[in-house]
Parts: sequence; structure tokens; C-alpha cells
Amino acid sequence: MPGAIAVLGGTGPEGFGLALRWVRAGESVIIGSRDAGRARESAARIQAAVGANARVSGEENTAACAAADLIVLTVPFEGHCALLKQIKPAIRSGSIVVDTTVPLAASVGGRATRTLGIWEGSAAQQAAELVPQGVSVVAAFHNTSADILNGDATVDCDVIVCSDDPEATKTVRTLASKIPGVRAIDGGKLENARIVEQITALLIGLNIRHKGHSGIRITGLPEKAYEV
Amino acid sequence: MPGAIAVLGGTGPEGFGLALRWVRAGESVIIGSRDAGRARESAARIQAAVGANARVSGEENTAACAAADLIVLTVPFEGHCALLKQIKPAIRSGSIVVDTTVPLAASVGGRATRTLGIWEGSAAQQAAELVPQGVSVVAAFHNTSADILNGDATVDCDVIVCSDDPEATKTVRTLASKIPGVRAIDGGKLENARIVEQITALLIGLNIRHKGHSGIRITGLPEKAYEV
Repeated sequence: MPGAIAVLGGTGPEGFGLALRWVRAGESVIIGSRDAGRARESAARIQAAVGANARVSGEENTAACAAADLIVLTVPFEGHCALLKQIKPAIRSGSIVVDTTVPLAASVGGRATRTLGIWEGSAAQQAAELVPQGVSVVAAFHNTSADILNGDATVDCDVIVCSDDPEATKTVRTLASKIPGVRAIDGGKLENARIVEQITALLIGLNIRHKGHSGIRITGLPEKAYEV
Repeated sequence: MPGAIAVLGGTGPEGFGLALRWVRAGESVIIGSRDAGRARESAARIQAAVGANARVSGEENTAACAAADLIVLTVPFEGHCALLKQIKPAIRSGSIVVDTTVPLAASVGGRATRTLGIWEGSAAQQAAELVPQGVSVVAAFHNTSADILNGDATVDCDVIVCSDDPEATKTVRTLASKIPGVRAIDGGKLENARIVEQITALLIGLNIRHKGHSGIRITGLPEKAYEV
């Protein structure tokens, strides 16, 4: 990536795992959190894991956002809208907001195997209404297991990338493919995030039922669909 | 399977492909269609493809249903409710109805990459309201490419099986695993068909965008989750 990647909610398992993988791949990452101290603590853990050359720091969410051109949202759905409203003034024009959020019913005390209906169709489409004009929202990384991301193993999961901005899709596919094992597939328009978000609830159900860390692979596409 | 499998709408590409695969695996299949003549013609094509030992016949949908304990619905969504109402008196008590239907928006002139909202949550849950008491509905085979099923190649796709009747799930997982390459995974309750049905619309979008015959594989589960 040209600049730093801000991972907001990066002290949580999904965000921490993505940040770890990207720092390992040589990217510069700013962990964002409500609490700057916790963000710095997570950054220090990644530094310790990756080594002296690791480029990682921690900031409060808005400060992290202001210092990056690529912002990755990894907060639970119950904090999604509020965070977007908070960071909106700090999002630079021309930035990309990558939304990994899944509207699990767990957000309102329900099950993690069920989802909430979102008026706009998906959490990512809701996000698209909350970012400044000229900022592209890209939906991705919903289906990658946090447990696997936090380990050392290859990630046996494809990342389906949805956005209405083909250039932003390309950038995020490149970012995804830096995670060993991940193949990043162009999933078309942002509206398709409706389906990709739901898949996570299905995978959570499979994990509970079968005691695993499930992911998905898309089969049957020509090789070039998987190439970045 | 103990008795015959009725594949209703079996003259269409998905139904024909499933019937072909099951007949090849030694199962006894009755192709159902609105038009008994067309059903017999499809049965004759399968007979010709599989050979003298093939156990396959063709009947009008209701007659096919009346002669089977396992009924597979492979009609487009626009014919789904009407067919279920028509066959209801012919469904034997204790039967299993396997619903492969995806509520594509194409059913009302929209896109095959989008779905309709179903009041009950999914086509399969709608079906569950339309079958006689004591009949189990099982959702499965939504994501298997008709083109691939109609060929000779191994099917590079997992079948996620959802039902509220664990015995019926087991029966349908056994049936699914008779298709070379298919792994049949217990996807939990019938309500999860909401998600599995949606995945087909995503795969259709990927097929259009990337010119392929896509399917899905679930990764990261213990071996026994894939065993029947």
C-alpha cells in the first residue's frame, strides 16, 4: 500500500489478526481503538511478534483514521454507525474504507448464527451512506477466521471483495492477497456485501456445530479470477 | 436410498443434472414434469447416457411424487408454491421433500444475481409451511452448478444441508455424497437455508463476471464434519 493502513477496532480479534498479517507482510499499520493506550499495547504485541522491522503503531480511532488513506473497520456491528459518524471528519478525501462488519444478531443480544436486517441491505451499504463524498467503501474480510488470522498458519479462505469503485476493489484485492493462503476475488458491486456478510453467520454456525474454524473457497472460476 | 427419488422439474438443467448423477450412482429416479411426455423423454436421455442398468422413468409431477418417498424440487421459484400446493395430496406421510429452490429476482423479471425477500425467510421455509404434517423439508443442492452436474467431471462443490429433522438431514447427506466430488455438510436448522439460498445468487454473479461455473468449499472443519 502507498501509505499506512488504519485498522479501527484493531485491538479486537479480527482486527488484531489482520493487522498482524499485514505488518508481517511489510505493510505500515496503525492500530485504532477507543482507548489509545490499548491500541499502543496491541501495537507493541505485534512489534514483539514480528520483530524490529515491523511498522506498527497505536492511536485513538479518529487519530488513526486521520493518518491513513486506507481505513479498515473491524468493530462489532453495535459500534459500527457510531464509529463512522465519529471518524467522518477525519476521513481524507479519496480514502478507501474497508468494511469487514457483519450485522450479527448477537449485536442486540441475539445469536451469532443469525443476522439483523439492515435497511440499506448490508452493513457495508450502511457505511457507504455515512462516509464523506469521494470516499469509497469496500466490503471484504468477513469470512476469514479471527483465530486463524491470529496464528501462523496459512489462511485457507478466499476473500470476496465488493465495491462500486473498481480501483478500490483492486487495491483491496492486492491487500488481501498479502495474507498467505488468501485468494482475493472480485465479488462485484457493494450490494453483494449483503450475501458475503450473511455467509459469516453460516460459518459461525458451522464452527459451533462441528468445532472448527471454517472459511470458504470459491471453486470453478478461471485462474485469472484469482490473480491480482 | 430405500425407494425411488422423484425429481420434480427434472427436465430443467439442475434437476436433470442431479437425476443423471443419481442414476449413474445406481439410484432409482423418477423424472417429474408438468408434461409427462417431456419427463419420459428426459428419462430416455438418461437411460441412453447411463446404459441398460439405469433405473429411471418419467411421469407427470404429481404421479412422480406419489411413487416416491424422497421428492426433490428443482423448479424455478416462480413455480415453487403452485407446485407444492398441487402435489400436497400426493406426498406420502413420512416423506422427505428436498428443496433446491433459490428465490432469484429473475423469477419476477429481475436479475439472477439478486434474490427476493421471502416472508418465511427462505424458499425452503416457505415449502415447510406447504407440505403435509409429518413431512420433513430439507434444503440442499442450491450451489451445485447445473452445467457441471450435466457433464462427466467431478463436482468441485460442497452441499450444505439444512433441516429441522436430523434423520432427514442424514438421508440427504448420504444422497449428496453419491455425487462424485461432493462433500455433504450438516448446515444445521432449516432457517439457515436463508443464507445457503443467497449464496447461489452470489455464485451466479461470479459466473457472469469471471465466466466460470463456480461452487463453494467449506474449509477448516474437522474431517468428521465431511463424513457421512
